[in-house]
Amino acid sequence: MTRMPKLIDHDERRSHIVDVTWTLIVEGGIEAATMREIAAAAGFANGALKRYFASKDDIIEATYDRALAVVSSYVAQDHGRGLAGLQAFCLAAMPLDARRIEAARVLLAFWSVSLYSPKLHAKYLTHLRAWRTQLAAFLRQGREDGEIRSALPDEQLVDELVLLNAGANMMSLLGPKFSTTRLQRQHLADFMLRLQQP
Amino acid sequence: MTRMPKLIDHDERRSHIVDVTWTLIVEGGIEAATMREIAAAAGFANGALKRYFASKDDIIEATYDRALAVVSSYVAQDHGRGLAGLQAFCLAAMPLDARRIEAARVLLAFWSVSLYSPKLHAKYLTHLRAWRTQLAAFLRQGREDGEIRSALPDEQLVDELVLLNAGANMMSLLGPKFSTTRLQRQHLADFMLRLQQP
Repeated sequence: MTRMPKLIDHDERRSHIVDVTWTLIVEGGIEAATMREIAAAAGFANGALKRYFASKDDIIEATYDRALAVVSSYVAQDHGRGLAGLQAFCLAAMPLDARRIEAARVLLAFWSVSLYSPKLHAKYLTHLRAWRTQLAAFLRQGREDGEIRSALPDEQLVDELVLLNAGANMMSLLGPKFSTTRLQRQHLADFMLRLQQP
Repeated sequence: MTRMPKLIDHDERRSHIVDVTWTLIVEGGIEAATMREIAAAAGFANGALKRYFASKDDIIEATYDRALAVVSSYVAQDHGRGLAGLQAFCLAAMPLDARRIEAARVLLAFWSVSLYSPKLHAKYLTHLRAWRTQLAAFLRQGREDGEIRSALPDEQLVDELVLLNAGANMMSLLGPKFSTTRLQRQHLADFMLRLQQP
């Protein structure tokens, strides 16, 4: 009778495999994360990965889950409500430091891939919907509290924040000398000012 | 003595190979554009591609050139100057129809790849620099003509337009039910209004 490995080991090794895949993607893009490379970097013999993940798609999916979880974790703390909450939330989501720029790099790799994977795309849409719902809630609170007086509909304001954030994530990788963190902060500060003007 | 194929055929075939690569990327992402698939779709025997492109990297580079040229062609017409020029230019660059959304799909595939290719990245930076220079020129003209009275620095305004456009391209693919073309038009219209306010 063979003994199953302890569950804790199993989870740890899955997590280790995701760590390794993450690093491979950061360093070389999604094409660099082949089964051979993942196995080598994780210190496994070829084929041993199958004990932890049924397929490469499963590893990719788990790494995407990690990427979305990392991004969500930046904004998960309690930011308060209304305008101040919105500002803190948006600032936390911007790629303003090396850790967040690294996560943007992994997300960018997945954005293209997820167009061809209904499963990954569904995950992104769940993430995006939660994001937009949260932004809308802050705006609603800000209006209730009389802080936000913009005549623009909230739907448009939410979308503008989403586009700015997506663009900032992309440009923090592709054109950081142009789209500096200073400008990112200015965009947010100006947006917050505009919300308060009738 | 072997005869070289006529130059015109050579150029036509190179262009055909780029067409085919473009379609493969649109339909399946960059990973779908393997040498084998490109040769098959172009109607060539395996290995015959070498007569037209030295390597896969060369095919990818030519396809990226095409993508950047397509995007540039949208905005290449004479848009006039100042505020009206800026508005027409920005509208032309937004992913508002199927043709432009398809180009966005190819660009998105390349954005991640170009992070790991100094040659592709340099091409993108040339494109981005020209784009920003053109946006800045419209803003300068608009100020000269007294149409633009925003107190924000032009550098910030240029960057905001770039982030909005990058975000719109991305969201036209990943979340088109949220970031609709109607909202994209509203963002631009609102931006143009803001430029005119002191």
